[in-house]
Amino acid sequence: MSTQDRPLTLFAYWRTSATYRVRVALALKGLKADEKIVDIDAGEHRSPEFLRINPLGAIPAMIDGEGDPLTQSLAILEYIEETHPEPPLLPADARGRARARAIAAMAAVDTHPLITPRVRRYLTGAGFDAAAWKAWQTHWFTTGLQAIEARLSAETATGAFCHGDQVTIADICLASIPAVMQVFDVKVADTPTVDRIVAALNEMPEFANADPYRQVGAPTR
Amino acid sequence: MSTQDRPLTLFAYWRTSATYRVRVALALKGLKADEKIVDIDAGEHRSPEFLRINPLGAIPAMIDGEGDPLTQSLAILEYIEETHPEPPLLPADARGRARARAIAAMAAVDTHPLITPRVRRYLTGAGFDAAAWKAWQTHWFTTGLQAIEARLSAETATGAFCHGDQVTIADICLASIPAVMQVFDVKVADTPTVDRIVAALNEMPEFANADPYRQVGAPTR
Repeated sequence: MSTQDRPLTLFAYWRTSATYRVRVALALKGLKADEKIVDIDAGEHRSPEFLRINPLGAIPAMIDGEGDPLTQSLAILEYIEETHPEPPLLPADARGRARARAIAAMAAVDTHPLITPRVRRYLTGAGFDAAAWKAWQTHWFTTGLQAIEARLSAETATGAFCHGDQVTIADICLASIPAVMQVFDVKVADTPTVDRIVAALNEMPEFANADPYRQVGAPTR
Repeated sequence: MSTQDRPLTLFAYWRTSATYRVRVALALKGLKADEKIVDIDAGEHRSPEFLRINPLGAIPAMIDGEGDPLTQSLAILEYIEETHPEPPLLPADARGRARARAIAAMAAVDTHPLITPRVRRYLTGAGFDAAAWKAWQTHWFTTGLQAIEARLSAETATGAFCHGDQVTIADICLASIPAVMQVFDVKVADTPTVDRIVAALNEMPEFANADPYRQVGAPTR
């Protein structure tokens, strides 16, 4: 476990995939953050108070001690890894790190940006009804998870988790997709390797406790 | 400059933003890659030959010596940085690296995934005509670049480039957006800081030579 010598503040909301990733990484490092809830359903990310923290109105944002707010979940994960190296969330070798980061990107770059609230707002304005939006969500969650499945099932570097038997940022980003799929009631079939790994991750308290429905502000299921 | 002791192969196409990023990073490190053209307009990314390289059919993919193909531009940039540290493409301090990675993500994660060919195919199938697609492209390029402008213009860490006076992955990812906007004939107004930095970057041969229209297979302008 890493030693925490400064207070951490995480601006968060119960159901966002990007906030989930940071919650898991902090937990795996044994770090505790004071969470400030930003209710994006109520528009609080556009409030003057939050725009002073992040002028772009995006969560998560994290403040470490005296510094400026950190933004973007992938950048925050790398920052947490660099400032609190134990236990490592990246493999020890450069090729392994590249593979873990690539799988992380398949979830956090190829998949997640397509199903965010701002995309929903645009498509609703362009005439998408609820069924069309659900079809869009389902298409991109399916495309993303089946692509990850194709890699994980084919590559010998896959182990108990995405990369061998050590939890990496690949696992954190992968698990962040089904974590929000449940919120939107979307299911993806034919991803047995993904399902096995996500089930194993969710046995760990660091992942289980980051479940959106266990967060402050979440509705009762 | 870094020393290159292994052959590099880059599977590439003239107009893709993600390929551009890798081209620039290799050039800045003084590395040379043998480019294999994958004509995605002709569907070559779905050919059996390329699917043996990357079963997901995505470019760029890069082979370094004997290893498996590396994928995902952000993961490839980090790999190049780790294996060829000079000149550095990330700041020396963890907070600076977090800022450079966050700005890079605003371009490569928040913006680029929304305007890819697969998204165009989906939206065309959902009834978007050419004008609706152009409006979509313009909206997300504008949203992305104006968000980056808001950061760059407000933060004192901005210098000649996105982070001080040293070229970082933030600059590479930022420049990859206007590099493809020209291909789609999209313009974004009111981004003076972005425009200043991109103009300075394009004065450097490493960026200028990565221009999509200077690549093999590009049409004549």
